[in-house]
Amino acid sequence: MISKEKIKYFNSLKIKKNRLSQKKIILEGERLIFEFLKTNLKINYLLVEKNYSLSKIGTKIIEKAKKNNITIEKTDNQIIKQLSSTKNNQSFIAICDMPTYKQLDYNQNILALDHISDPGNLGTLLRTAEWFGIQNILLSGDCVDIFNPKVIRSGMGAHFYLNSIYKGSLSNKLFNLQNMGYSILGADKNGSPLSKLNLKGKWVLIIGNEANGLSLNIKNSITDLISIPGKGNIESLNAAVAGSILLNTLIQ
Amino acid sequence: MISKEKIKYFNSLKIKKNRLSQKKIILEGERLIFEFLKTNLKINYLLVEKNYSLSKIGTKIIEKAKKNNITIEKTDNQIIKQLSSTKNNQSFIAICDMPTYKQLDYNQNILALDHISDPGNLGTLLRTAEWFGIQNILLSGDCVDIFNPKVIRSGMGAHFYLNSIYKGSLSNKLFNLQNMGYSILGADKNGSPLSKLNLKGKWVLIIGNEANGLSLNIKNSITDLISIPGKGNIESLNAAVAGSILLNTLIQ
Repeated sequence: MISKEKIKYFNSLKIKKNRLSQKKIILEGERLIFEFLKTNLKINYLLVEKNYSLSKIGTKIIEKAKKNNITIEKTDNQIIKQLSSTKNNQSFIAICDMPTYKQLDYNQNILALDHISDPGNLGTLLRTAEWFGIQNILLSGDCVDIFNPKVIRSGMGAHFYLNSIYKGSLSNKLFNLQNMGYSILGADKNGSPLSKLNLKGKWVLIIGNEANGLSLNIKNSITDLISIPGKGNIESLNAAVAGSILLNTLIQ
Repeated sequence: MISKEKIKYFNSLKIKKNRLSQKKIILEGERLIFEFLKTNLKINYLLVEKNYSLSKIGTKIIEKAKKNNITIEKTDNQIIKQLSSTKNNQSFIAICDMPTYKQLDYNQNILALDHISDPGNLGTLLRTAEWFGIQNILLSGDCVDIFNPKVIRSGMGAHFYLNSIYKGSLSNKLFNLQNMGYSILGADKNGSPLSKLNLKGKWVLIIGNEANGLSLNIKNSITDLISIPGKGNIESLNAAVAGSILLNTLIQ
């Protein structure tokens, strides 16, 4: 049976400052834990629903966890529900080491995110970036925390594979990147379609806030505003969708 | 002050069968309500947080609602929170008429969704389809309900503009569409990139379930499996992202 202290510890890691001081994160769901087990990082503690009939992935997780001497504890569905960040039923939840990242690689293209506030959008953008092999992520200070459990969930393993995630003032960084020869591309309704751009060399793609778009303080650093032409009545695309469509076009 | 009966009525509309019998839906948030007011459909009841300092859009909503003799009631933040499907703070929530849809237009391309179970993904896919002018949506019977409040929220108005949303058995319908000359494109990891496809004429794009992909019972109706080539380590793209990238490529 899981101790009260352990439950308290789980819950404490829902808060950013505790995650940072402990250098631990929470993983929810078997697919995510399975991805994590492929890395060199360490799972400290694995909680499994006691009535769970093991799936193929679940069985592999338990086998690997036993082999790696990871503490496995069985518990009620109610406890896992309480510890989980979503209402979806999960059978596995774990505490594990926080991944670390290298410096930005200035020979590579970069995805920059400007005040992305929805955890699902941030995670999905990391997932798409990793899918397309974009390993450099630049985040404004006011983006939602990348280790928020919902961001980790929607990242679907991207957190464990990305090379660099730098968080800080976007405006200074973009100015430097422009001087290094990067094209600084800002996604904006009033931009030009990517097909009209004669893009050469490295680029940074910036996706702005869900409700307000690109921040005013970075507009001067942008070399090109780009858009996704639409034909319908609605006002905009979802931020993660827009970023993903632009990444797909840029890497062609 | 909002009556207990009204709160009960709001809550009842969170359940699909009540929405269907009443032909009413719930709208959350000022942007969505603002979009709805552009249509010919009717808002029956508008609830506004009493301490809300009106934004530009909020002011327009109130003006238009008064002009249209819509019942406006002010209430506590707590009540709106309780009625809302998300934890995000909303200042407006409304009950309004359920949109109705025409038959599928067999001169147009179609987006088909096969067992999409996440409300955010379904809404986002409707939003992207409407953005690109794809007005025909075909849903398998086991997709999440399109009038689920979370689907409506992430649809961001797409529900009010789409021409046709047909829900039913996908396999029969796809078979008929194939006989009408449609290319039936299934998104699948093992498919070919769209660039390798010599596509002529009308198409149906099918996006499968988030965890399990395309259903077995529709595989025979598919003329081409298509994919989005990736370079990274993770297993898949988010379903709404994959669908959106493929739609963007198909409409070029």
